[in-house]
Amino acid sequence: MLCLRSKTEDAWLARAIADTPALLIDHAHCERKAAMQAMALLAEYPCHPELVGPVVAIAHEELEHFTLICEILAKRGIAIEVQGPTGYQAGLFKKVRKAEPDRLIDRLLIASLIEARSCERFKILSERHPDPELRKVFGDLLACEARHHADFVRLAEQQADRAEVQARLTHLAGVEVRAIERAKPLPRVHS
Amino acid sequence: MLCLRSKTEDAWLARAIADTPALLIDHAHCERKAAMQAMALLAEYPCHPELVGPVVAIAHEELEHFTLICEILAKRGIAIEVQGPTGYQAGLFKKVRKAEPDRLIDRLLIASLIEARSCERFKILSERHPDPELRKVFGDLLACEARHHADFVRLAEQQADRAEVQARLTHLAGVEVRAIERAKPLPRVHS
Repeated sequence: MLCLRSKTEDAWLARAIADTPALLIDHAHCERKAAMQAMALLAEYPCHPELVGPVVAIAHEELEHFTLICEILAKRGIAIEVQGPTGYQAGLFKKVRKAEPDRLIDRLLIASLIEARSCERFKILSERHPDPELRKVFGDLLACEARHHADFVRLAEQQADRAEVQARLTHLAGVEVRAIERAKPLPRVHS
Repeated sequence: MLCLRSKTEDAWLARAIADTPALLIDHAHCERKAAMQAMALLAEYPCHPELVGPVVAIAHEELEHFTLICEILAKRGIAIEVQGPTGYQAGLFKKVRKAEPDRLIDRLLIASLIEARSCERFKILSERHPDPELRKVFGDLLACEARHHADFVRLAEQQADRAEVQARLTHLAGVEVRAIERAKPLPRVHS
């Protein structure tokens, strides 16, 4: 359902467990960045009224998750610090085609794949992280990530022939596998 | 209460009434930009947990207003197009000091002044625009803008001595007067 073309390896979970504060800080940044990228889409494509409702709804939810993770960090006395990039997002966005509507389709499909990877990894954390509070938090969030994934795919399918969009999604899912394999091996959601 | 150091002239209202579609498109962009600037503050100042709650709350409200204005535009068959800058925001942001916490204080105070000017002008529109639906919309929004203005001032006051912050606000309110006077005379919220 999520269109991903690789399964996350146990080494990722080991890194996430070994430095859970860094994972949570990254998670807060991911939620904030997802909200900002959603709003950036609306800035770049103001003439697409079909984007407004679904994309604003996603931005609201990302902001809610950002607040939730910030509260967990504050409760645990963990300061949110700046973190350097892992190369994952750069590896994806460099494949965005230049001409329209290809560019918009790629932006939407890449957003859908980032949500899909979050969802897959939140499921792993919800089942296997030793901290029960975090198992619950990630378990609560993963359905939302799956819904965002589906929303972005649906919006992409409104921009062109559905079969073409599905073929492009399959291609970009291959790009996503390479991007996540090449990302720096840090305790991050996408690394 | 709003700290503004000039009153909007009737010529602005005449422009707004003469091209209300352009004003509404700008208003949609303003709400989106306000949400993005709020999130950008959280990106740049991740180590300030006191910002998270109030700033995320503001971002949520800006997104709600953006959606509201997009709905009004759609209902009226007005497409949201890209609009060039008027120079107002650039005139304000070039005065941001470089060192911290001055930079954060200035960012917060400039955000508070932009909200204040919106509030002052929404009040004029709520009383004097010939369209009854828009009089109601702007009347409903202006209390929110006033609250955001106060929120940003309060956050700035948490960063340094209150009297110093108030003196800086008075100074920047003078900068705001020059920025709005020098902005291109277009049918915009801040021009």
